[in-house]
Amino acid sequence: MSPTIRPILDMNAFDATRDKGAVSALLGRRQRNVGAASVLFYRHPLEMARASGCWMEATDGTRFLDFYNNVPSVGHCHPRVVAAISRQVATLNIHTRYLNRPTETYIEALKATLPDSLSNVVLACTGSEANDLAMRIAMSGTGGTGFVVTESAYHGNTWAVTDISPSALKQGAPPPHVCMVPAPGSANFGEDIAGGFQTAVEKAIVTLGERGHTPAALICDSIFSSDGVFADPPGFLAPAVETMQAAGGLFIADEVQPGFARSGDAFWGFDRHGVTPDMVTMGKPMANGYPMSGVATRPDLLARFCEGVGYFNTFGGNPVAAAAGLAVLEVIETEGLQANARKIGHHIMTRLGELVATDARVTAVRGAGLFIGLDLCRDGDPDLPDPELTSTVINGLRDRRVLIGAAGRYGHTLKIRPPLCLTRDEADFFVDALTDTLAAIPSA
Amino acid sequence: MSPTIRPILDMNAFDATRDKGAVSALLGRRQRNVGAASVLFYRHPLEMARASGCWMEATDGTRFLDFYNNVPSVGHCHPRVVAAISRQVATLNIHTRYLNRPTETYIEALKATLPDSLSNVVLACTGSEANDLAMRIAMSGTGGTGFVVTESAYHGNTWAVTDISPSALKQGAPPPHVCMVPAPGSANFGEDIAGGFQTAVEKAIVTLGERGHTPAALICDSIFSSDGVFADPPGFLAPAVETMQAAGGLFIADEVQPGFARSGDAFWGFDRHGVTPDMVTMGKPMANGYPMSGVATRPDLLARFCEGVGYFNTFGGNPVAAAAGLAVLEVIETEGLQANARKIGHHIMTRLGELVATDARVTAVRGAGLFIGLDLCRDGDPDLPDPELTSTVINGLRDRRVLIGAAGRYGHTLKIRPPLCLTRDEADFFVDALTDTLAAIPSA
Repeated sequence: MSPTIRPILDMNAFDATRDKGAVSALLGRRQRNVGAASVLFYRHPLEMARASGCWMEATDGTRFLDFYNNVPSVGHCHPRVVAAISRQVATLNIHTRYLNRPTETYIEALKATLPDSLSNVVLACTGSEANDLAMRIAMSGTGGTGFVVTESAYHGNTWAVTDISPSALKQGAPPPHVCMVPAPGSANFGEDIAGGFQTAVEKAIVTLGERGHTPAALICDSIFSSDGVFADPPGFLAPAVETMQAAGGLFIADEVQPGFARSGDAFWGFDRHGVTPDMVTMGKPMANGYPMSGVATRPDLLARFCEGVGYFNTFGGNPVAAAAGLAVLEVIETEGLQANARKIGHHIMTRLGELVATDARVTAVRGAGLFIGLDLCRDGDPDLPDPELTSTVINGLRDRRVLIGAAGRYGHTLKIRPPLCLTRDEADFFVDALTDTLAAIPSA
Repeated sequence: MSPTIRPILDMNAFDATRDKGAVSALLGRRQRNVGAASVLFYRHPLEMARASGCWMEATDGTRFLDFYNNVPSVGHCHPRVVAAISRQVATLNIHTRYLNRPTETYIEALKATLPDSLSNVVLACTGSEANDLAMRIAMSGTGGTGFVVTESAYHGNTWAVTDISPSALKQGAPPPHVCMVPAPGSANFGEDIAGGFQTAVEKAIVTLGERGHTPAALICDSIFSSDGVFADPPGFLAPAVETMQAAGGLFIADEVQPGFARSGDAFWGFDRHGVTPDMVTMGKPMANGYPMSGVATRPDLLARFCEGVGYFNTFGGNPVAAAAGLAVLEVIETEGLQANARKIGHHIMTRLGELVATDARVTAVRGAGLFIGLDLCRDGDPDLPDPELTSTVINGLRDRRVLIGAAGRYGHTLKIRPPLCLTRDEADFFVDALTDTLAAIPSA
């Protein structure tokens, strides 16, 4: 379970008297149906009925501003995406063993956003499948078996990908072929994040070697979402990537979180760092909720992998997914969502900077575009993370109709990640709600 | 790559002069876009434009009867499924960290088809994800690490699941924690398939032990699709399942192929064998093409797994998938598709039996409902499989507007697997086309 989930589940304390009966009954059904695998936000969860733009509406009629769910990135139930899915699903929805035009059109539109070297794209259904495949492509391409990841990384839920997702482990540690490095923040590396992170990757490669593993890849979510959001300074990834590549390993940019224009500065998170990945994996916002993911890779790497294994993904790249994905790319372009993410993200950062200046509990704000982290600590000390306060804030924001989660090793970083179509008024609604929430919580 | 794919790719010889230019250009785009991971039917592939019921229409206007694609199981673009998806995707499409009614309604409808003991369902997006999760649940639940699979099994495409999918390997053998048993046919076990298969599983457990692995599970596609379709006699699986369970391992029924009423005799393939699996995995036809899969499991097994790992699937069980899945269950029920599969399947089997009696090259027909295998051999000898003839037949059927694939270790089994809404006339169209195709091929 990711640290983005844990504190919310364990620590909030919604009053059961709020229960209107219906939600409680549905919760009972859920627990009987899904058992121990049920993961819900809030001890007293919400039942959703509909959603549009940046807003979700619960069954009791309450409307919430969605600052957490990064899947419907161009807006919940965007009419253009809905129309594309509805049209294509009524026309043709088959696997890719037959040719179909929407799939190739989509891949070409996607490739236009990527480095020329990544000219092959394998489409799948989930970010987990994409990373699972990328790991194997890296192994066959390098002969290596070791992976370097950050210490609170989350890359997905398959067996192989869970191994490289330390934040998914409730107990134990990753297996020997996986070596962790600290998250690239100033708490770990001071001023020289680029140099510190590079040194950490260098050491990890040595450690892997001591365990009998040559490196296959460094894989990073290029906004370091589950680690607590680390975006700056742009370029800090480059030396670490060079180090991995010099050691014979690859760099896999996991763009499930920052990809598709969220960072505002660029379409892909890795672009901000001036690096060319050997592979790019993508998922969540790719088709605004239709299950779709992909691996963009160098043809030589893919060819090597395919010598040993026949890979085919039944639902991957079907024409409905392609139509949905193409609509997402078109909406990002026509509605100027990358520029909007930059502009509104900057506005939020500016206003949150004022909170950092005035409220000792708010120790830092950082991010890029509409991917922002806000640290909450005790005694104004960045070394005393306060996940309890974070949980209280999350619940206070729910009272004020904003849904939001937390991230980071200690769960003390508010993860600010609304749809890219967020307006300035909606941004202010959030910052005002946060300000009110903090004001209502007495300082310890 | 599965044997269902290989012979078709390698052996057919469509004339390039058929090329109308447009398809050839699209093929070039596909090869540039997907590279070595491109898997296409026919050397000269088809470009599809639309589909409805049991028929697909290519862009040149030719209509083909679909006897291969088992995903759109209730019929291509079924209006009820299309309407359910279109309505829900315009209303709410979010992850399951919030409650929503469609998801619980769906799981309860699904559970009504399953043994009472399998009261927890984890929804994911692909059969591969379902089997990947089931493997780990089996390991944590038993403490075992060994898996027993059939020799041409295909269970999916993740790293872990590829390990238990011998037919996906182009070179090499499965790793030591995976032990293969022969497919449960008379070629391997003579008359006593139940006893022979049980003994093979017993030996596999011993072999795993010699390699240091106690058994976690026997996992079977309960119609043994990629092995060549083995359905009879009903009940033959039971002794092998008992043997595995007595050794401390579980039985995982992979229902991606036979599930959702295809066998005609029952809603699930394992029902025909009178066994109660410890887990049931499902996929392909579950939502008629919307990416959806699931693991039904005993709550105690799931609870044990969740102690160690936090599993969450972003797209899994979202309300659109649930709406699509529910529409599929309703269509199967209201259109009587299980009874139709039994009736039309029986009609096809009867007519193909006549071919077996009259054409020496056709050595056997077997199956259940609308999942039927037909063996093609040389010299009327069941020990001389003829994949070349099978490939010629597949291409001849294409000329006669029937799309079909092959299965089995040697690729000599025609895999007959149309949508469940197949009519008697459509069944006759296929058998007539097959008869004509064989008549046009001179015996060697």
